[in-house]
Amino acid sequence: MATGNRTGPSTPSTPSTPSATPGAPARRPGGRTARTRALVLDAVRAQLVEHGYDGLTVDAVADRAGVHRTTVYRRWQDVGGLLADLLTLGADDDWQPADTGTLLGDLAALNHEVHASLTEQPSIAAALIAVSFRSPQAAEALRDFWEGRYAQCETVVDRAVVRGELPPGADARALLVAATAPLYHHLVLLRSAPDPELPDRAARTAVLAASAGAFTG
Amino acid sequence: MATGNRTGPSTPSTPSTPSATPGAPARRPGGRTARTRALVLDAVRAQLVEHGYDGLTVDAVADRAGVHRTTVYRRWQDVGGLLADLLTLGADDDWQPADTGTLLGDLAALNHEVHASLTEQPSIAAALIAVSFRSPQAAEALRDFWEGRYAQCETVVDRAVVRGELPPGADARALLVAATAPLYHHLVLLRSAPDPELPDRAARTAVLAASAGAFTG
Repeated sequence: MATGNRTGPSTPSTPSTPSATPGAPARRPGGRTARTRALVLDAVRAQLVEHGYDGLTVDAVADRAGVHRTTVYRRWQDVGGLLADLLTLGADDDWQPADTGTLLGDLAALNHEVHASLTEQPSIAAALIAVSFRSPQAAEALRDFWEGRYAQCETVVDRAVVRGELPPGADARALLVAATAPLYHHLVLLRSAPDPELPDRAARTAVLAASAGAFTG
Repeated sequence: MATGNRTGPSTPSTPSTPSATPGAPARRPGGRTARTRALVLDAVRAQLVEHGYDGLTVDAVADRAGVHRTTVYRRWQDVGGLLADLLTLGADDDWQPADTGTLLGDLAALNHEVHASLTEQPSIAAALIAVSFRSPQAAEALRDFWEGRYAQCETVVDRAVVRGELPPGADARALLVAATAPLYHHLVLLRSAPDPELPDRAARTAVLAASAGAFTG
């Protein structure tokens, strides 16, 4: 998923996880409109990771994409519109959580994707989180994106219930947040150094809590 | 602690928790220098919650504090210096985690402080987190502040070990992050609505995980 989701080694992107934020477009279906969108959103990503929000202007994006400025203004209006569309694109892809056969394995795989997306250099995920504190439109789009990703991940919990790993009625969202939140906390807020053991450790903690009944009743 | 930490109902401040970020000065020891610092940092807080980072300039802070601009420039240099000093002040106070007699009670009390600091209107904690994505100096000061707070909270885990609630050797930091991270994740990153049950639920999850051996071995 992560690799299939990238346009190339030089284009910053990210696995589209609940953590993460949209990667490069998975496909570029034909049509000039679709090609223009791909060019423009690639330029948004590149501009964002290289220059941050302060370097993200409609004009800079248009110039970088080689698209007429008027076209960009007409279709996206402003920087908020560009960021919202970038997140919409990420939400539209065909990402699915890994199916490893165990709850622990699924959560660990998810956490490894989150960890990778937040620690890769440059990280479009980290850049978009930072931008969400500046642009209300980006904040709303990021919230919607994560909402969609967590909803997609509920299948991980459903499968664990079917396998008898969890009792029916487990609160999937609370379990998924418990598993993933420590990664965001360490890497985004506490700004700790990347810790290769953190994804597995946080997944294991959530599974042990679940086994002890934390997310049921 | 939370109330003793406020200067008054009209001054936005916050309980100084690992979550939170420094409240108003606990004391104002005599001396003109100390009084100037208190006036200036009160003005930083007020300016930040009312106008955000974009409205935070040395001149605006000096004018609001009624302190000569030159004095502020000489002592704090720039906005980064002001924010760093605000966080240093928070770290210097005499905050201690509540001692309720149980691990669950202590973690729940901590989480209620975190929840309150992030949801009060206006929230200086939320404002400082947002600013940490703009000012590297604020980011570093916030990291140091949290580091201090988590270190202070390790006593919660130590006491639980003494009471026999946890086996010796429990990873205090991992347990504290597991307990508090879901609050930050929901309220700061996912931008969920305040949830009065979240503090207790996250504390209970961490305690159940701990009982199941998540933070030992």
